[in-house]
Amino acid sequence: MELKLESYRAAREALINADRALRRDRLPLTTTINSLGPGDLETKADAILRRIRQEEADTIWTEVHPSIPHPFPGMEFLTGKSIIEKTKIFKILSKMPKGGLLHAHLDATVNAQVLMKLVEQYPAYHVSVDQVLTEENLYAVLPQFEVFTAAGHAATSITSDSYSLGSWVPYQDARKNFAFGGADGFDRWVNAALTINPKEAYETYNTSTKIWEKFSSVFICARPLVLYEPVFEQYVREFFLSSIADGISYVEPRFNFYYKTMVGADGSPLEHRQWLLIFDRVLKQVKEELESQGRGDEFHGARVIYTSLRFLSPEEVEWYLEDCLALKKEFPHLIAGFDLVGEENAGRPLIDFLEVFMKFEARQKEEGVSIPFIFHAGETLGDGTHADCNLYDAILLGTKRIGHAFSLAKHPEILKICREKGIAIEVCPISNEILRLTSSMPAHPLPVVLNNGVPVALCSDDPAVFGNMGLTYDYYQVFVASEVNGLRTLGKLARDSLEFSTLDGEEKAAALRAWERRWDEFVRYIAGLE
Amino acid sequence: MELKLESYRAAREALINADRALRRDRLPLTTTINSLGPGDLETKADAILRRIRQEEADTIWTEVHPSIPHPFPGMEFLTGKSIIEKTKIFKILSKMPKGGLLHAHLDATVNAQVLMKLVEQYPAYHVSVDQVLTEENLYAVLPQFEVFTAAGHAATSITSDSYSLGSWVPYQDARKNFAFGGADGFDRWVNAALTINPKEAYETYNTSTKIWEKFSSVFICARPLVLYEPVFEQYVREFFLSSIADGISYVEPRFNFYYKTMVGADGSPLEHRQWLLIFDRVLKQVKEELESQGRGDEFHGARVIYTSLRFLSPEEVEWYLEDCLALKKEFPHLIAGFDLVGEENAGRPLIDFLEVFMKFEARQKEEGVSIPFIFHAGETLGDGTHADCNLYDAILLGTKRIGHAFSLAKHPEILKICREKGIAIEVCPISNEILRLTSSMPAHPLPVVLNNGVPVALCSDDPAVFGNMGLTYDYYQVFVASEVNGLRTLGKLARDSLEFSTLDGEEKAAALRAWERRWDEFVRYIAGLE
Repeated sequence: MELKLESYRAAREALINADRALRRDRLPLTTTINSLGPGDLETKADAILRRIRQEEADTIWTEVHPSIPHPFPGMEFLTGKSIIEKTKIFKILSKMPKGGLLHAHLDATVNAQVLMKLVEQYPAYHVSVDQVLTEENLYAVLPQFEVFTAAGHAATSITSDSYSLGSWVPYQDARKNFAFGGADGFDRWVNAALTINPKEAYETYNTSTKIWEKFSSVFICARPLVLYEPVFEQYVREFFLSSIADGISYVEPRFNFYYKTMVGADGSPLEHRQWLLIFDRVLKQVKEELESQGRGDEFHGARVIYTSLRFLSPEEVEWYLEDCLALKKEFPHLIAGFDLVGEENAGRPLIDFLEVFMKFEARQKEEGVSIPFIFHAGETLGDGTHADCNLYDAILLGTKRIGHAFSLAKHPEILKICREKGIAIEVCPISNEILRLTSSMPAHPLPVVLNNGVPVALCSDDPAVFGNMGLTYDYYQVFVASEVNGLRTLGKLARDSLEFSTLDGEEKAAALRAWERRWDEFVRYIAGLE
Repeated sequence: MELKLESYRAAREALINADRALRRDRLPLTTTINSLGPGDLETKADAILRRIRQEEADTIWTEVHPSIPHPFPGMEFLTGKSIIEKTKIFKILSKMPKGGLLHAHLDATVNAQVLMKLVEQYPAYHVSVDQVLTEENLYAVLPQFEVFTAAGHAATSITSDSYSLGSWVPYQDARKNFAFGGADGFDRWVNAALTINPKEAYETYNTSTKIWEKFSSVFICARPLVLYEPVFEQYVREFFLSSIADGISYVEPRFNFYYKTMVGADGSPLEHRQWLLIFDRVLKQVKEELESQGRGDEFHGARVIYTSLRFLSPEEVEWYLEDCLALKKEFPHLIAGFDLVGEENAGRPLIDFLEVFMKFEARQKEEGVSIPFIFHAGETLGDGTHADCNLYDAILLGTKRIGHAFSLAKHPEILKICREKGIAIEVCPISNEILRLTSSMPAHPLPVVLNNGVPVALCSDDPAVFGNMGLTYDYYQVFVASEVNGLRTLGKLARDSLEFSTLDGEEKAAALRAWERRWDEFVRYIAGLE
């Protein structure tokens, strides 16, 4: 019997190893693995992290909270956020070097309250509403914003009896004179329009279709606030600095160029190349500042994924593809790729754009540039639907990475292709949960993707809307929802976010070396916790 | 360009085919495929079903219902059931020959209201409560039931001032004299204890951990009602007849032998072999009745999966293994396998029982019998937890099928083993959703399992508790949640439920032949719908 038991246990270990053999966190983590010090330092740090995770699962996550009916690790983010922030694991992960942020929509990367603080400083912002505001309907009526640099808007309140619906009132005045709680009440109202709250996600709009109504409205509200030159410049700067503060050393935001102009400081329209000039200027400033502080390891730059909308006709998209091409020629170091954004279930499938994408490839050759597709695909619960089948077209069109690929788990052949060709998946755990593709992190298909050896980069998608600023929250949700995931998993995800970025050559090598130095420090820090 | 587009489309079709190449519904459906008539009859029927599915997705499923905030195909079953029942797809599927029901807990197979109708006829049933019932606490206090065949319980109400808490009152009296709505109110109260309602599933106990509190309480309530000989006999009969009425032609229920006796008609204790004698007698009667009506094709029998509890110690389980062995020797045609039941996240992992299972295998050899394990495993959201790792042990212990295997999608090696060795998965879609492993059917991992070519049998698990009587509801949820699934998918699932049953030899061949005849009829019926 003893012999039989022993051989059973050996077979069991072999089976588990075979089952996990494709996982990328089974490979050595860094090329400078020895720099981590004795191998058992990493092992020790991993054990400490796992122990704290278990302790917190048994303590903080079992406490009864009047406002949180059923806490558990990996629970609905908007409800559990206050608990997450109390944990040691969160504090530890906030110090982790995260590598690159490869999937974030630029106009949703800065905390809504920070954006509002910027906005309230500029008299050019105006607000209007199309219904009379009351205590009852307040949060059902969305503010509309516009920038007018010339004077001429005499009204000073959107809540006075004399307010004419649809007319524009200076933001500063409307805020000061807001009848429902004054400036604070106004800020709460605007904040609600710029973010998704738990009741919206988990009750009012609790399906993956419905929540997009709310989600889309946020972008419509936010666009005029962001696309005003003086604020935009500070917005980009804040995005870089807050990312760096969270341990992100490189960003590859998606930049929505659907709107053809933004408002310049003097009221003149600024075209896309001018947006990039601002972006580039801020980027250089931030890099120089960090280098001058001896913090060059902390930031290796930013590149932009040009995006248009999947709701446009192929003919309309063609204009954006040409625009993208022109920008790539002028800013070869800034344009990282091309993508279409918008709700996949509702928008046109990728295959509708097949001809214009093929022309785009030909045009790139003519112009001597290379702009990879970095497509959203499979951000859906559908099985065999257009949105699900976008995965096939993303692959066939040669996508460099795939955004979301939530439905990828269902597709054995595409998993294999992604693994073999090194097509990384930009997984956005908190976004997927708030947009109701998964009810919580333990139900997320990420383990399928990891166990199939597909490279993954964790991403925050729209942190301004979801409240998952930085990447610490997303790493937290992933780490606590699986007992397979350990320290090396975290490290591999972070490293892969640089490995599968559009950085290349010496730029990428430098970013990886810097990350490895910081990872080494991080491991030592954890190992020193006991 | 035209040539490029054409070659793209060819590559696309090849990719989709490769991605779905492992699916079992790509193989010819029946050995008598030609009996289905011209191949295009099946194609025509499939197209009709798909068209109706789409029409209903766009009509019935988009209607606004005051009590159903967000209807969609495959939605939460307890909320969407009334809509499902209005659809044509449901009516069509109710006529489908379903093959075998391979995963259902016998004590949860008969509609609660039917059980209550049986129970109220017998004066031996008694009820007690341990708290004073009030309008407010009514549905929070569970009834307790017992059978006492001797007289001696004088009280006639559990709601009168003179009721002594914990004392037993005849069920018939307590029902008649119930202060909260009389007999109807009593029935509503008992029904609530025997079922899970939408508020419980989707609000009060809305996590996979919490819902088990409610779920377990149902079995505790129901046990004394079911395990009384006169009712048990009718219960088993009703289970067979209602299954047959839904198109199920074979059943392999799990029979919980944890309780060592049931109460005989005369009050004497009946041991396990007597339970099986009753089961066998009813089975023979039902088969004879059907044969005499010329309906022999509709029912090919029943076998029992012996189950004990995963909360017991290995030493305790050993008693049940020996009991199972003795029953197998006496009723070789009835005992189909062995399993442990109970919440996997909370109970002992399979590996705790390794030694007793190994002894069990040796004992089978000594006794010259063969009793396959047919384990529950992976009924969890855990990743790398004990419950998830039960999948490894189920495989290594040679399980014939796996119950639930909800976490299987994460395990590439186990998917491969199941595909190659023909280990079928007993997938219980509605059970998984109500027990909060998935928020709705579109989020269920079933497509991962199907696309990896693993055989699947759809099962109802505990229809008395969930309200998914028969298999039509589960087939409905699966069919409407995927555009890949078509008529052949349904047929393959049904056929595999016989193919991977414990039937063998001529018995299985006969059951398959009968199913194929009925499937042929079903296809003709659909094709004739337009």
